[in-house]
Amino acid sequence: MLSTMQDEQLSLATLLRYAQSFQGDATISTWTGTGLRTTTYREMGADAARLAHALRALGIEQGDRVATFMWNNTEHMVVYAAVPAMGAVLHALNIRLFPEQLVYVANHAEDQVVIVDGSLLPMFAKYLPQLRTVRHVIVVNGDPAELTAPEGVQVHSWTELLAAQPDTYDYPILDEHAPAGMCYTSGTTGDPKGVVYSHRSNWLHAMQVISPNSMGFNGNDLVLAIVPLFHANAWGMPYAAMMVGASLLMPDRFLQPGPLLEMMAVAKPTFAAAVPTIWGGVLAALEAHPQDISHLHTCAVGGSALPPSMMRAFQEKHGVKLLHAWGMTETSPLGSIAHPPKGAVGDEEWAYRATQGRFPASVRARIVGDDGSVLPDDGKAVGELEVRGPWITASYYSPDGGEVDASKFDDGWLRTGDVGHISPNGYLTLVDRSKDVIKSGGEWISSVDLENAMMGHPAVAEASVIGVPDEKWDERPLVAIVLKEGSTAEPAELQGYLADKFAKWQLPEHWTFIDEIPKTSVGKFDKKRLRARYADGDLKVVTL
Amino acid sequence: MLSTMQDEQLSLATLLRYAQSFQGDATISTWTGTGLRTTTYREMGADAARLAHALRALGIEQGDRVATFMWNNTEHMVVYAAVPAMGAVLHALNIRLFPEQLVYVANHAEDQVVIVDGSLLPMFAKYLPQLRTVRHVIVVNGDPAELTAPEGVQVHSWTELLAAQPDTYDYPILDEHAPAGMCYTSGTTGDPKGVVYSHRSNWLHAMQVISPNSMGFNGNDLVLAIVPLFHANAWGMPYAAMMVGASLLMPDRFLQPGPLLEMMAVAKPTFAAAVPTIWGGVLAALEAHPQDISHLHTCAVGGSALPPSMMRAFQEKHGVKLLHAWGMTETSPLGSIAHPPKGAVGDEEWAYRATQGRFPASVRARIVGDDGSVLPDDGKAVGELEVRGPWITASYYSPDGGEVDASKFDDGWLRTGDVGHISPNGYLTLVDRSKDVIKSGGEWISSVDLENAMMGHPAVAEASVIGVPDEKWDERPLVAIVLKEGSTAEPAELQGYLADKFAKWQLPEHWTFIDEIPKTSVGKFDKKRLRARYADGDLKVVTL
Repeated sequence: MLSTMQDEQLSLATLLRYAQSFQGDATISTWTGTGLRTTTYREMGADAARLAHALRALGIEQGDRVATFMWNNTEHMVVYAAVPAMGAVLHALNIRLFPEQLVYVANHAEDQVVIVDGSLLPMFAKYLPQLRTVRHVIVVNGDPAELTAPEGVQVHSWTELLAAQPDTYDYPILDEHAPAGMCYTSGTTGDPKGVVYSHRSNWLHAMQVISPNSMGFNGNDLVLAIVPLFHANAWGMPYAAMMVGASLLMPDRFLQPGPLLEMMAVAKPTFAAAVPTIWGGVLAALEAHPQDISHLHTCAVGGSALPPSMMRAFQEKHGVKLLHAWGMTETSPLGSIAHPPKGAVGDEEWAYRATQGRFPASVRARIVGDDGSVLPDDGKAVGELEVRGPWITASYYSPDGGEVDASKFDDGWLRTGDVGHISPNGYLTLVDRSKDVIKSGGEWISSVDLENAMMGHPAVAEASVIGVPDEKWDERPLVAIVLKEGSTAEPAELQGYLADKFAKWQLPEHWTFIDEIPKTSVGKFDKKRLRARYADGDLKVVTL
Repeated sequence: MLSTMQDEQLSLATLLRYAQSFQGDATISTWTGTGLRTTTYREMGADAARLAHALRALGIEQGDRVATFMWNNTEHMVVYAAVPAMGAVLHALNIRLFPEQLVYVANHAEDQVVIVDGSLLPMFAKYLPQLRTVRHVIVVNGDPAELTAPEGVQVHSWTELLAAQPDTYDYPILDEHAPAGMCYTSGTTGDPKGVVYSHRSNWLHAMQVISPNSMGFNGNDLVLAIVPLFHANAWGMPYAAMMVGASLLMPDRFLQPGPLLEMMAVAKPTFAAAVPTIWGGVLAALEAHPQDISHLHTCAVGGSALPPSMMRAFQEKHGVKLLHAWGMTETSPLGSIAHPPKGAVGDEEWAYRATQGRFPASVRARIVGDDGSVLPDDGKAVGELEVRGPWITASYYSPDGGEVDASKFDDGWLRTGDVGHISPNGYLTLVDRSKDVIKSGGEWISSVDLENAMMGHPAVAEASVIGVPDEKWDERPLVAIVLKEGSTAEPAELQGYLADKFAKWQLPEHWTFIDEIPKTSVGKFDKKRLRARYADGDLKVVTL
């Protein structure tokens, strides 16, 4: 017997048509530094059609890559809407990649067109001569004349290019497995690796984002997308917002705590998403300049571990719930998210909220031991997290179809490189990245746990823990501390602060004070560079 | 370029494994008439495995139909979980079908096994000898000896059958388009027609049910499923509840307002779903015996139009939000649902909530005129509603592959037989079933509008409006009124009540008072039978 159901393809063209019609009143607002410029999904739809016509006229065919080099703003959303809908593939370039990586990924993806914010032209101008496949550059909110085009590259004005085009477009309905977008990992080792999302994966991921056991925002929300559109699809917010008619608030290039808070005072977003570093900065700014931000009911936080102290501070001082989440570029990115289970209150609730969260039905997860065996979900057995599901990658993009880093895949499962355990009721707790694990005398010490605890200390702005060689124990932890401005603290005092939270053998004896933790292009602690500085003798270490 | 995403199949086996493990603490409670019997999803999973083994032992293969003849209870959920997961097809028989229809659908679907509630054995015993393909009957909570089995049919006890089986099962992962369940329409004309849902359609539908722009319940909810599991998949609640770990409350056979309220007082559900008839009864019972039901935050209502007066009464007197929804067996059933748009308050909010609701992104909808042209979504143009989407049927089931009622499909769209209009922001307002439309002097009169208005009159319990032949105007409306117990009202007074709500030419002049509106097997007004009674001269009509 066969199902009688329609073979309807999940398609971002359908999503765009829906958003611009039945959800056409929802808005996109972009901060200008002094105020908001606001359009509707209806207007986004008209501009998307104009862009699609313009790109067709520039020769963009189905499957061709169209790149962006942009902040989060209205025009970036237009590109998000138009490019996959017309059958092309959106490649949002990470403007914070190291130069050689940026050039590598644009060439590797064979980007044909790059759409660039005017404010980023000076930076982009340095890369352009090295981009081998780019034929057209479209400048948004800027002067194309500022860019000297290499031979064979045409530079266009977004406004002029779109002005001449019709405001409707006959988008094709593609097979749902057709490529829709791509993103590269920003790993600190080796070349960045590409992931190619499909219409199907983006659609299903958007349905999960709006689910009440994930972000769960709806048409009444104003969603502040701080996490960049070039960073793992802005955690899926663009398409999810289109799906429920949630309005969007875009900070453009104004990402410092002061401007962010100024924008929030004007726009009063109800939901937001960003990495912990941003929230840390906002929290510090609020201490200096109090402001009511209780219009934000929920903030999703991921990308790296969220210190519980920060979560408490936001909730208790500002009435804002931080929602801890785990994911990666390879997982679209939504993996798990930390809503506590029914009935959990007080300390139990906080304990659940400090985990990386619970997996939804679409993301299968398992913990695998060093020997490759699947470990029980007992909340204790520690190993590498492996996941699978309809929005999780099966491989890395290879232009010639060859295998890229096959070691990251295990019989259909993605090896995440994250180390942790899963409770019987599906909550993930990460203890480390597999490459950051500290093994002391044969036992694991969680750098993440030490960092989280250390960041609860009033004098500490940031803390990062790495393993350093030790003759007796193989490895021992070294804590790198960034003190808050005007604060002082001694290693012995800091170690004492950890004393009742860890076993004695886990307490770090090596300490260093630095001005800043080195960060990756997406703002994560770059422990590889920290380890290199240690190896080079570049850190002044105090040993207790 | 190809997407790198995993080709993960959306599968009810994955959903079951998820529900019984990571959501294993969620509960299923069934009312016994005097109290609750409660199990967990973990136990449901163990019983589902036992049932799957038992069905395999009875010879059930992939694609075979396993039927139920059951109330909403714990065991029915076990069947819902086990049958599709093992690769068989769940056919929940509508116990309220007229006998000849019940026999027809069981034979048409070629049901191999029927699982029957003990309390329904007397009714089922009458049908069994006519069921040509049934080889096994499994009796739940009852005595198999009560059933006299025809030759070739074995009767089993659920308890004994499951006791011997292992509590884990190696469920296959099927192609997501594989059949998972089926349902027959309960149309009043012609033979019932079958729809075959797939794993994919059930999965996507469940994701929509939990979306905040649909039912939106979550793991904190206790969901009262009054709408039967044999009625359009209980509106998708079983699989949606499993997906978010919402607990379920099942009323079994206790569906009268008194027992329902008694159960609610004990269990305190937070979300419920049922047809308007049920809510009308509950409302009347609450007037006689006040009870706090504000633990219910939301009740989804569909199946037939929800009178606005009832919606207001629930909200204003009892603090319960009724959520109007539209759908049909052919649409899994979730089509539209009436959350008001952002910013709508007061009368505007009520006006939106009285519509059949807004379409989600996955359900494409259009209004088609008599001449087959697509009409604008302007909130005015009236025509037949057509829909398409991944959980909407493309055809009716045919054992031999032949076409069944092809007139219900239009170039890939389902013709719903509902007549109405769609607003620019995606809200559906139905004015009639196409076969119930009253055309007076070339203009449409909405029977649904007249019925809704009439049911706002304090003396009226139920009102149904049909078109009757008229020499001058072709057709004119006849109103059939069921008065509330102890109430009286005259036709002139009732007509006067409508006078400020309708144009003069729309006001009905023909009136009749009856004891009960004839209903279909799923509780909808059966206007075909009302028209037949009128044609037979069986109604006492007053003409003003």
